[in-house]
Amino acid sequence: MRAVVYAGLGRVEVTDVPDPVLKDPADAIVQVERAAVCGTDLHLIADGEHLPAGFVLGHEFTGRVVDAGAGVSAHRVGDRVAGGDFTACGTCWWCRRGDHWECPRRQFFGTGTSFGPELAGAQAQLVRVPFADAALRPVPEEISADAAVFLGDTLATAHAAVQRAGLRPGDTTVVVGGGPVGQLTSLAAQACGAGTVVLVEPVEARRAAAAAEGALTAAPENARELVERVTAGRGADVVVDAIGGAPGLDTAFGLVRRRGTIVSVGLPAKSWPLPAGQAFADELTLRFVIGDFLRDGDDILALVRAGAIDPAVVASATVLLADAPDAYRQMAERRTLKALIRL
Amino acid sequence: MRAVVYAGLGRVEVTDVPDPVLKDPADAIVQVERAAVCGTDLHLIADGEHLPAGFVLGHEFTGRVVDAGAGVSAHRVGDRVAGGDFTACGTCWWCRRGDHWECPRRQFFGTGTSFGPELAGAQAQLVRVPFADAALRPVPEEISADAAVFLGDTLATAHAAVQRAGLRPGDTTVVVGGGPVGQLTSLAAQACGAGTVVLVEPVEARRAAAAAEGALTAAPENARELVERVTAGRGADVVVDAIGGAPGLDTAFGLVRRRGTIVSVGLPAKSWPLPAGQAFADELTLRFVIGDFLRDGDDILALVRAGAIDPAVVASATVLLADAPDAYRQMAERRTLKALIRL
Amino acid sequence: MRAVVYAGLGRVEVTDVPDPVLKDPADAIVQVERAAVCGTDLHLIADGEHLPAGFVLGHEFTGRVVDAGAGVSAHRVGDRVAGGDFTACGTCWWCRRGDHWECPRRQFFGTGTSFGPELAGAQAQLVRVPFADAALRPVPEEISADAAVFLGDTLATAHAAVQRAGLRPGDTTVVVGGGPVGQLTSLAAQACGAGTVVLVEPVEARRAAAAAEGALTAAPENARELVERVTAGRGADVVVDAIGGAPGLDTAFGLVRRRGTIVSVGLPAKSWPLPAGQAFADELTLRFVIGDFLRDGDDILALVRAGAIDPAVVASATVLLADAPDAYRQMAERRTLKALIRL
Amino acid sequence: MRAVVYAGLGRVEVTDVPDPVLKDPADAIVQVERAAVCGTDLHLIADGEHLPAGFVLGHEFTGRVVDAGAGVSAHRVGDRVAGGDFTACGTCWWCRRGDHWECPRRQFFGTGTSFGPELAGAQAQLVRVPFADAALRPVPEEISADAAVFLGDTLATAHAAVQRAGLRPGDTTVVVGGGPVGQLTSLAAQACGAGTVVLVEPVEARRAAAAAEGALTAAPENARELVERVTAGRGADVVVDAIGGAPGLDTAFGLVRRRGTIVSVGLPAKSWPLPAGQAFADELTLRFVIGDFLRDGDDILALVRAGAIDPAVVASATVLLADAPDAYRQMAERRTLKALIRL
Repeated sequence: MRAVVYAGLGRVEVTDVPDPVLKDPADAIVQVERAAVCGTDLHLIADGEHLPAGFVLGHEFTGRVVDAGAGVSAHRVGDRVAGGDFTACGTCWWCRRGDHWECPRRQFFGTGTSFGPELAGAQAQLVRVPFADAALRPVPEEISADAAVFLGDTLATAHAAVQRAGLRPGDTTVVVGGGPVGQLTSLAAQACGAGTVVLVEPVEARRAAAAAEGALTAAPENARELVERVTAGRGADVVVDAIGGAPGLDTAFGLVRRRGTIVSVGLPAKSWPLPAGQAFADELTLRFVIGDFLRDGDDILALVRAGAIDPAVVASATVLLADAPDAYRQMAERRTLKALIRL
Repeated sequence: MRAVVYAGLGRVEVTDVPDPVLKDPADAIVQVERAAVCGTDLHLIADGEHLPAGFVLGHEFTGRVVDAGAGVSAHRVGDRVAGGDFTACGTCWWCRRGDHWECPRRQFFGTGTSFGPELAGAQAQLVRVPFADAALRPVPEEISADAAVFLGDTLATAHAAVQRAGLRPGDTTVVVGGGPVGQLTSLAAQACGAGTVVLVEPVEARRAAAAAEGALTAAPENARELVERVTAGRGADVVVDAIGGAPGLDTAFGLVRRRGTIVSVGLPAKSWPLPAGQAFADELTLRFVIGDFLRDGDDILALVRAGAIDPAVVASATVLLADAPDAYRQMAERRTLKALIRL
Repeated sequence: MRAVVYAGLGRVEVTDVPDPVLKDPADAIVQVERAAVCGTDLHLIADGEHLPAGFVLGHEFTGRVVDAGAGVSAHRVGDRVAGGDFTACGTCWWCRRGDHWECPRRQFFGTGTSFGPELAGAQAQLVRVPFADAALRPVPEEISADAAVFLGDTLATAHAAVQRAGLRPGDTTVVVGGGPVGQLTSLAAQACGAGTVVLVEPVEARRAAAAAEGALTAAPENARELVERVTAGRGADVVVDAIGGAPGLDTAFGLVRRRGTIVSVGLPAKSWPLPAGQAFADELTLRFVIGDFLRDGDDILALVRAGAIDPAVVASATVLLADAPDAYRQMAERRTLKALIRL
Repeated sequence: MRAVVYAGLGRVEVTDVPDPVLKDPADAIVQVERAAVCGTDLHLIADGEHLPAGFVLGHEFTGRVVDAGAGVSAHRVGDRVAGGDFTACGTCWWCRRGDHWECPRRQFFGTGTSFGPELAGAQAQLVRVPFADAALRPVPEEISADAAVFLGDTLATAHAAVQRAGLRPGDTTVVVGGGPVGQLTSLAAQACGAGTVVLVEPVEARRAAAAAEGALTAAPENARELVERVTAGRGADVVVDAIGGAPGLDTAFGLVRRRGTIVSVGLPAKSWPLPAGQAFADELTLRFVIGDFLRDGDDILALVRAGAIDPAVVASATVLLADAPDAYRQMAERRTLKALIRL
């Protein structure tokens, strides 16, 4: 089959690789209909450390089941499905608790050895999905492939951020960062009880995209003023840091109200000087959150199917598989928000 | 001042009554800008039992504070406010728990002795509000009077129904009845995490109103089929009975899925043959809910201010105070959904 | 192997039956160490309708895994385990939601065709456990067999009642009925945040058992007085009906406070005249609940292992397998609270 | 009246001061029956910065109402009451949300200008309580003064820690620090659903005190080993840091499991190097929490009245008012856990 593979530092190419085959009764093979390129992919190829040459990339996908092991009971050949960006056993203590990310048998698609054992990615004509009952969900026909491709990672992350924020109805919610996750966090918050949503982002086009979907927006330098205006000077009830690192956390701490909640879904710095005195005096809550389609997939699908959230609004470019290297370039140069690959 | 008063069985009239005055340091006087006519008002005058002749009617209102006792600290003269349909002390065991409806000093506006001691109503130029700190909330200028008038009762009821349903994100939510509360329940559910919302209502115009605001709709005889279609045959996760009586509960039990939740905000029959065997086998939850603006007012205001819910969509007619009897008639004859009185 | 089987209306006997064998890769075979006799068993043999002659009874058990299919990953031969009273697939929409009782592939042990397809019971030397990953939990050595045997049904039911009651810390909790489930509901409530727990029970010995374990107790005719005394006249925040039928629900409605919650875990009458007027005016919540060890097993085990709950306090008699018919008789004649079978 | 006052750096004395009088209709005067000396008191007199000479100290108290303003409705002269360590208006946006600590009119008893405007303390024969409806709760006779004195601060803090931890039933809970708050956190966790509770503390006597009340205990150097043993190597589900500063947070981060929750109720360092990389990879939650008797008082009282928590177990010394300086000394020299003053 044809697949997008790592081709040395900063480079990907589309090439022939062997078709994946079932290795375990719990496996399924999915014929990919749509895959996405993620910021994580860009980091991985820029770094290269965890990627063998020729490794198949990609962890966001939707398609149809074309083969399934004897142990797969929730899906059949021909079913239209969306997949999580990682898979997990579904039966251990962690999985039973809904913490699939901590499963000892977790495997993350298309990221080499970055997050555990290797599992070939989904920017390919076919992808093998271990623990298919846990990692796949059926996608009804009324959800487009351009929407379904976002369910397992971008929207799962946004959804987890909003859910773990413990939104009280009407809460003023700030989203720091207008990338794909930030944009969908704005939508997820609006669908799940937020009051005013403010998206903070330096790039005007990204602000415009968020504004078109119901958020108030501000450049970082104007954020405090806007947030104070809409909260009678109190600050935001909830801030979701969707950029990470020290800048994301600093911005979040500058915008949250006393007794507010900060949720970070952006990869942070290794260490960060927490203003613990302020955090205690103001009784802040700080949560770090990773999306989990295995836990939240049914809820996410129900929201998207109902039209409460349309994740396809962040799809800003679509290329054929052969042009995937172009998509990587556009993303790297920030010329597009989120590129999809049509197979 | 001029006010709408009870004028004998089935009749109201607009007449002069004495201006209300502060009786307690915790009182405020509100100059009413907009009041609404409620189905409850129609029941009361049709029954007459709990209404002395000349009693000032009305319990839905917004306006400005024109006088406030020394014990009022949250509001000042000139403040724009919305009021709950009842008031309560705010300090007893029940109020501290957020159960203001059970406060021993609860008083319901404009309903005679129906729900406790008499308190003159708000379909009047002025209304006295006991425990003003608890019962009033400031209304920002960006919320219109046509929206603010609904906060304290119609929307508070819809909001309470949705909150007490314990919606899981994406839950398919059925609303039984397309009156004002049903319409706003549909909006509140959509704003607070519901997936598909289905409104069940026999009157086509009411179905159309709900459909224009994002709900799927069905006549009662088609409801089961539609609900099964959108839930893969399971039935609704949540059903809100917004009509009450045996028909409301029967319909709800016919549409809810196993392990689902029914919330009733409609006045039920005195007794009703609960299908307890089904309820146990299916592990159903049944909750009866009354709105509470004193508890939920801040959240409701935040949702409305953000545009997440626009309650003004149910305002279908507006009359001047002098024409209030017309408004009563239109409501009684179901020629309009919800009539407002402009003062 | 030897097993307790149905031997005609009202009768059981211990006899030889074929050893169970693995039928599916997800199956395990458990060598039973301790089984319990349940009120449900008595109902079933008294009725007989759903039991073929010679059917192996029993659905409460603990023991060791002696064989496991290739698809079982959470358990190994030699593991000490406790089982749910039913088993379910663990992968369907219902199971993913934690509603295993609604799983289309649910099978209840030892109850004939009462609750779906037949599955031989656990009052036997060996029992086959379908979907063993979902239905079994490891039991650490510090939990005795006399405690472990209660985890999957009696305690799972009590625990579910308490959890679904949504106890606020300090809530006065009434338990109607001092049978095994009622006794453990009292313990579970005390461990999970209840304030005063009142157990209502006509039999003095059962009241004494509950009192020895921390509950206040009352005969039914004195219950209202006691509850009013400890709640300043308000009534109970939460009532768990652990007897069912009209008497259980009537008692519960007579003891609950306004805005309180009633949870019924007792099999109710087919229909029951709900006092809907009172339920609405008082904003009551009524929930019907069935235990689910597949969902709650880890939590229950953690509570028992920590000593927060000791379910063995309800074990009032223990017999050898050969004497199981005696145990049935003692239970039927209410001469013992809960009889165990040692294998 | 006689009162304990600040007498220069590190010193207190008992002297005559003017009796407090009502200043506002919402005030009450309480005749103190029992007061406690708190670690905070020791910090304040050691620092001196926020204390005028002669300032009346103390913020933990119980007693009887001897005078009440016209605006006080929840309490009457003669009522036995416990007070919060601070008072707040009860009517503003923050108070309505249950965040009384953020009330603009908050006043903290007996701490000079440390936390806002001065309010004379409660280590005195009489104390004035502003906003008495909000800050006082009735104490039934069956709760001893030795228990009631802890409700408003030590137990309120412990309770808030446990509630904000969002304990799932059976959660292994570590308490870092065996001072009064740590001891009561152990009790509150056990009462509200924790599984195994491990208290980490270097002083043997404090470990013994916790062990006698149901906790497992460990010296800091053995904590990791014990926690791993009782959690199958995973680490604690919840860690409450009851000592604060870098040591408290470091210890907490070393004991929590992946996806676990850390609640800090100890005053932290101004800044602390958060291991953000670990916190993200492990999806940790970090919450800073301050007790709030105004919000939680009813729940706390219900738990204590039921015997679910007995806070008096931490009272290790009781002195007469004249000997209060001795009590301060014993606390400062760590010769006693928590000293009470009998008036």
